[in-house]
Amino acid sequence: MATRAVILLSGGLDSATCLAVARAVGRECHTLSFDYGQRHRGELARARKLSAALGAASHRVVKLDLAAFGGSALTDRAIAVPKGRSLARMAKEIPVTYVPARNLVMLSVATALAETLGATELYIGANAIDYSGYPDCRPPFLRAFERVARAGTKAGVEGRPLRIRAPLLRLSKAAIIRLGTRLGVPYGITQSCYDPIRGRACGLCDSCVLRRRGFEEAGVEDPTPYATRKR
Amino acid sequence: MATRAVILLSGGLDSATCLAVARAVGRECHTLSFDYGQRHRGELARARKLSAALGAASHRVVKLDLAAFGGSALTDRAIAVPKGRSLARMAKEIPVTYVPARNLVMLSVATALAETLGATELYIGANAIDYSGYPDCRPPFLRAFERVARAGTKAGVEGRPLRIRAPLLRLSKAAIIRLGTRLGVPYGITQSCYDPIRGRACGLCDSCVLRRRGFEEAGVEDPTPYATRKR
Repeated sequence: MATRAVILLSGGLDSATCLAVARAVGRECHTLSFDYGQRHRGELARARKLSAALGAASHRVVKLDLAAFGGSALTDRAIAVPKGRSLARMAKEIPVTYVPARNLVMLSVATALAETLGATELYIGANAIDYSGYPDCRPPFLRAFERVARAGTKAGVEGRPLRIRAPLLRLSKAAIIRLGTRLGVPYGITQSCYDPIRGRACGLCDSCVLRRRGFEEAGVEDPTPYATRKR
Repeated sequence: MATRAVILLSGGLDSATCLAVARAVGRECHTLSFDYGQRHRGELARARKLSAALGAASHRVVKLDLAAFGGSALTDRAIAVPKGRSLARMAKEIPVTYVPARNLVMLSVATALAETLGATELYIGANAIDYSGYPDCRPPFLRAFERVARAGTKAGVEGRPLRIRAPLLRLSKAAIIRLGTRLGVPYGITQSCYDPIRGRACGLCDSCVLRRRGFEEAGVEDPTPYATRKR
């Protein structure tokens, strides 16, 4: 029987590649997306399509109203999404697009689903190289999460601990795109933009900047329709 | 300015006492309850009343559909709530009322709220003495959670870590009741039962058994209307 895994799938480039990696190593993949009041909710339809295209065994969307708390440009329309940040600045400073404890909440809900399904692996497309400075994408956080899930679940204390798999953790965005291209990820379906303009990627938010540069460096054609030209 | 704290408030005896303790030490208390599809949802109305009665600064209910995952007698009506378990058995075995990763999910969402509010403490009524055998009420889990919250939040990595306070952790149920009685907790409002019968506590589930015995040992009158007599 195939090892069962839960895959956090936002509908973006990284998580789609992560799903493709899990499939490539033979996992039975159960994808999980979150409707958390994000302004880029269009990614949810992308997640559904990607789950089908990449052969997931099941797909679920959990509604979780983090927007009710506020505190992030991704959920609060009163806070603007920063545009045109330099890569140097991204590496130095946690931006206002940080959603308080988002990955902690998502991994926790995914742990609940994994335990219910008897899944022993949890895949997350976290990346510590070309990322926006979020603390909850870094290795110390992921290691700490593995420990807390072991201590706080029935499966964990009974000797069936959940493994956190972050296969993209040490890859550059270009390397992720090259890997996903080899595995047949339909990047045209993925959406990375935090602040789409009438369905088109803005081209200027951190996520667009990293994505554009990644395709360029990978030497792969970027299928994304951007609303603005590259600066 | 008073230290701000988020309090996980189920509407049960332990979390109500926990709120009273946080108030007694001068915290500005923001209570958080979860509508997770539990069969004993009547506790949510109790949580609201308790927040008002005990002077919370705010009260929130977050809807989170863990019932969609199944896997617990508390959320799946096809699984019966065990009745009449002995205390020895409770100490030995994790029961079917365990909700996969429940406290992990709740603490994570509470961490998100704490970060948004600038709260530096998170109170949970976890108890490792008179409890039902849940792994997510034990000290190793709470310590591991404090570490993961520090690693995975902006506040944590910037040197404002969240402290997990579990003031009832080492108290017997009787000691909790004596403490809460001194602090004026209106126990008549609290609800502990997992499986109420027409609004009355069943008297036989683990939670009722522990509650009944606690009031008896504390020498405090139990205000709970039970549907069955004590065995």
